[in-house]
Amino acid sequence: MPFVNIRITKEGATTEQKQQLIEGATQLMVDVLGKNPKTTFVVIDEVDTDNWGIAGQSVTEIRKGE
Amino acid sequence: MPFVNIRITKEGATTEQKQQLIEGATQLMVDVLGKNPKTTFVVIDEVDTDNWGIAGQSVTEIRKGE
Amino acid sequence: MPFVNIRITKEGATTEQKQQLIEGATQLMVDVLGKNPKTTFVVIDEVDTDNWGIAGQSVTEIRKGE
Amino acid sequence: MPFVNIRITKEGATTEQKQQLIEGATQLMVDVLGKNPKTTFVVIDEVDTDNWGIAGQSVTEIRKGE
Amino acid sequence: MPFVNIRITKEGATTEQKQQLIEGATQLMVDVLGKNPKTTFVVIDEVDTDNWGIAGQSVTEIRKGE
Amino acid sequence: MPFVNIRITKEGATTEQKQQLIEGATQLMVDVLGKNPKTTFVVIDEVDTDNWGIAGQSVTEIRKGE
Repeated sequence: MPFVNIRITKEGATTEQKQQLIEGATQLMVDVLGKNPKTTFVVIDEVDTDNWGIAGQSVTEIRKGE
Repeated sequence: MPFVNIRITKEGATTEQKQQLIEGATQLMVDVLGKNPKTTFVVIDEVDTDNWGIAGQSVTEIRKGE
Repeated sequence: MPFVNIRITKEGATTEQKQQLIEGATQLMVDVLGKNPKTTFVVIDEVDTDNWGIAGQSVTEIRKGE
Repeated sequence: MPFVNIRITKEGATTEQKQQLIEGATQLMVDVLGKNPKTTFVVIDEVDTDNWGIAGQSVTEIRKGE
Repeated sequence: MPFVNIRITKEGATTEQKQQLIEGATQLMVDVLGKNPKTTFVVIDEVDTDNWGIAGQSVTEIRKGE
Repeated sequence: MPFVNIRITKEGATTEQKQQLIEGATQLMVDVLGKNPKTTFVVIDEVDTDNWGIAGQSVTEIRKGE
């Protein structure tokens, strides 16, 4: 019964990419820990770039400098 | 001072249902643990069905097959 | 497929009380939202009183003043 | 490598205020624990007032009574 | 800068298995989203079986019936 | 009613440091957002270094190489 929460910045992940994250994270629980996929949950949180900070700066600001 | 976080898929929970979740979860803390409701927080996160996976499949896909 | 996370201070909740929290939170999802209990998870986190603060003070300190 | 998650109600925090939260939380990790700011993450979650409850009531309802 | 939180029951995951979870989850972020592994965090929470419920029952109880 | 969750590796933070984190995070909510400290919660999670990964490696391994 693992619960995997993936938090990423909201920068255009597609439905297909999200599907790949769900498949990959579920398979990881099966392969490494022998967990039952039927009771494995994966939840993806997409966070606005204004709301995510690294090194004291928002990702919005970091992206401007790239 | 409990903190209860309820994560559900975003599939049309009404304001009234959310109010019932808040009341019910708060009452549970009072009844079972004798907690003070004034410092009991309940936070409901509604997650897009593309972003929630079970058994390696998104809820969007699961709903199509139902 | 709800996921309910209950965070409380570690102050002696018994196995029976935890069982009541699990049952009560699961039933709340069934009663209010019509969710399937088989895919409803409840996770209880017990937090050391040194590690939980309210109003700028740890619960350890608050308990001393009660 | 601290991860700081700030959850607040969605009631109009400005980009500048969010930047101050990111800076302040990062600096706190540096000042108190000597952490490296480069690997300090801050994530702000803004929660709809219908979805946040205190004392068994949603913040939407509490605001009406103020 | 993804943050991946893996929650599992505390049932004897080894240090090597945890290392595999960290590697696998990090690689998933690189492969699917092109993320930088240097700013990818993985945090594993191991939860006591008394504190995790499914279908209204603790995992401790579920294990007894298996 | 902010809820601040600080996640750090378990590497010997003292009770005094935790108190400073609680005070500092609470004050940040007051200073930046004008929040009421009485309903501001701070929860510190200390994570075993085997259970925290960066760049695909556990902090236990990273510390060995330092």
